[in-house]
Amino acid sequence: MNHRKSRSGKKSTGFSKRSSPSPRHKFDTILFGKHTIFQALKNQQRQFHQLFLTRNLRDELATEIEARNLTPQVLNREDLNALFDQPVVHQGIVADVAPLPMMDLDELDGQTPVLLLDQVTDPHNVGAILRSASVFGAGALVMTRRNSPQLGGVLAKSASGALEHVPVILVPNLGRALDQLGHMGYWRIGLDGAGEQKIEDSVSVSKLAIVLGAEGKGLRRLTREHCDSLCAISTSGNLSSLNVSNAAAVALHVIQQSADVCQ
Amino acid sequence: MNHRKSRSGKKSTGFSKRSSPSPRHKFDTILFGKHTIFQALKNQQRQFHQLFLTRNLRDELATEIEARNLTPQVLNREDLNALFDQPVVHQGIVADVAPLPMMDLDELDGQTPVLLLDQVTDPHNVGAILRSASVFGAGALVMTRRNSPQLGGVLAKSASGALEHVPVILVPNLGRALDQLGHMGYWRIGLDGAGEQKIEDSVSVSKLAIVLGAEGKGLRRLTREHCDSLCAISTSGNLSSLNVSNAAAVALHVIQQSADVCQ
Repeated sequence: MNHRKSRSGKKSTGFSKRSSPSPRHKFDTILFGKHTIFQALKNQQRQFHQLFLTRNLRDELATEIEARNLTPQVLNREDLNALFDQPVVHQGIVADVAPLPMMDLDELDGQTPVLLLDQVTDPHNVGAILRSASVFGAGALVMTRRNSPQLGGVLAKSASGALEHVPVILVPNLGRALDQLGHMGYWRIGLDGAGEQKIEDSVSVSKLAIVLGAEGKGLRRLTREHCDSLCAISTSGNLSSLNVSNAAAVALHVIQQSADVCQ
Repeated sequence: MNHRKSRSGKKSTGFSKRSSPSPRHKFDTILFGKHTIFQALKNQQRQFHQLFLTRNLRDELATEIEARNLTPQVLNREDLNALFDQPVVHQGIVADVAPLPMMDLDELDGQTPVLLLDQVTDPHNVGAILRSASVFGAGALVMTRRNSPQLGGVLAKSASGALEHVPVILVPNLGRALDQLGHMGYWRIGLDGAGEQKIEDSVSVSKLAIVLGAEGKGLRRLTREHCDSLCAISTSGNLSSLNVSNAAAVALHVIQQSADVCQ
């Protein structure tokens, strides 16, 4: 996997510069949470500026910390709390890291499925989608540079380490990204409750791109027009619309099961 | 469906009594959000004490409000914000309602699948699970009275109306509830990443109970011992653990697909 540009380096919302133990340090991306930072420590592409953690976690992660040649700063929970200007479930570990190198769409080498998000803005949802993408072996997650959440602490915490495993590709325009994926041989499915086809019957192709829309709004018209087919998840109850991360998990599982059958 | 007891009537966290337009009113459960209250209005078992909403929403929901013979109080967004002591995405509509009548486990009449949660405490996750339960036609959601979130505003908003459709059964003890379900002929599957069987191969029985554990902790030992089998969701990527609501959605979809094949 080749990488070129740098992912967005804005600081994570809620991290307090004033109360930092290292006030002159330039903050790139703040990560927190045990799974999140454990996976980041194992990712050689992830550069660490600083690592703050409790004594217990320093002992627990001694091997990983030594392997990365880091000198962490041991803090108690109150001092870790004071790093943030709002309550955060940091689980005793906080890291100031560099953004990951960024991949381009044309560097995809047939990885499938590729997930695309059409203005899904909630970092918890995008993080959970990234987590499912990692669990079910998706190739990449594509989002627009605008109208997408920061690749920072909240998203990374919900992704539970998956930010280190699934390449995130930021594009200026989703329609053009879908055009490009079409030229690259991807069959582009828009997930849409009103879709006439069922996702369960539509995934037996070799290279798939799955597009998911935002809660409530769904896929934009232009996005739908750039898809080869619109598919719904089969439902059988009173409501018909799943939470977007749950819809992504079901679609990814369907695709994985289909791939297992075809092998 | 029979109902007997009343669900927990504690007020939703964050609702400010002081700034309420009706300070002497006894608050039961505060609901907010458009989908949530739309479904509540259509549920004849849901009693409304008060309905606060914007002029636009009063016009949009005129039919449903008239059908319930309600006299809503029209407020602007600032006044709706002031009903809460913390920021809430109320979408222009807030209701003070009575808890729904509560169902008992022995009133289940063969509904399947039944979902059970083992100390899943995050109301967003439980709400999303309830939403998927409604989408995939699950029979009921069982939780313990303690160590479960309130059936209030945050959970109801994440459930996006599903709280009105899926019976929630609160039990004192999950092990005893699993015993009882066993006597009632349910095959009890604990969803566990370490399970030796795959959920995809294990759902071709007529009455299913699916147990999900909390993030991180998973199923407690006693809960696992009350299951007939422990099953994992098939995964193929770097991480193996899904968000609990995503795991529930995948399991419910697998069960629905299996039922479709068997019909």
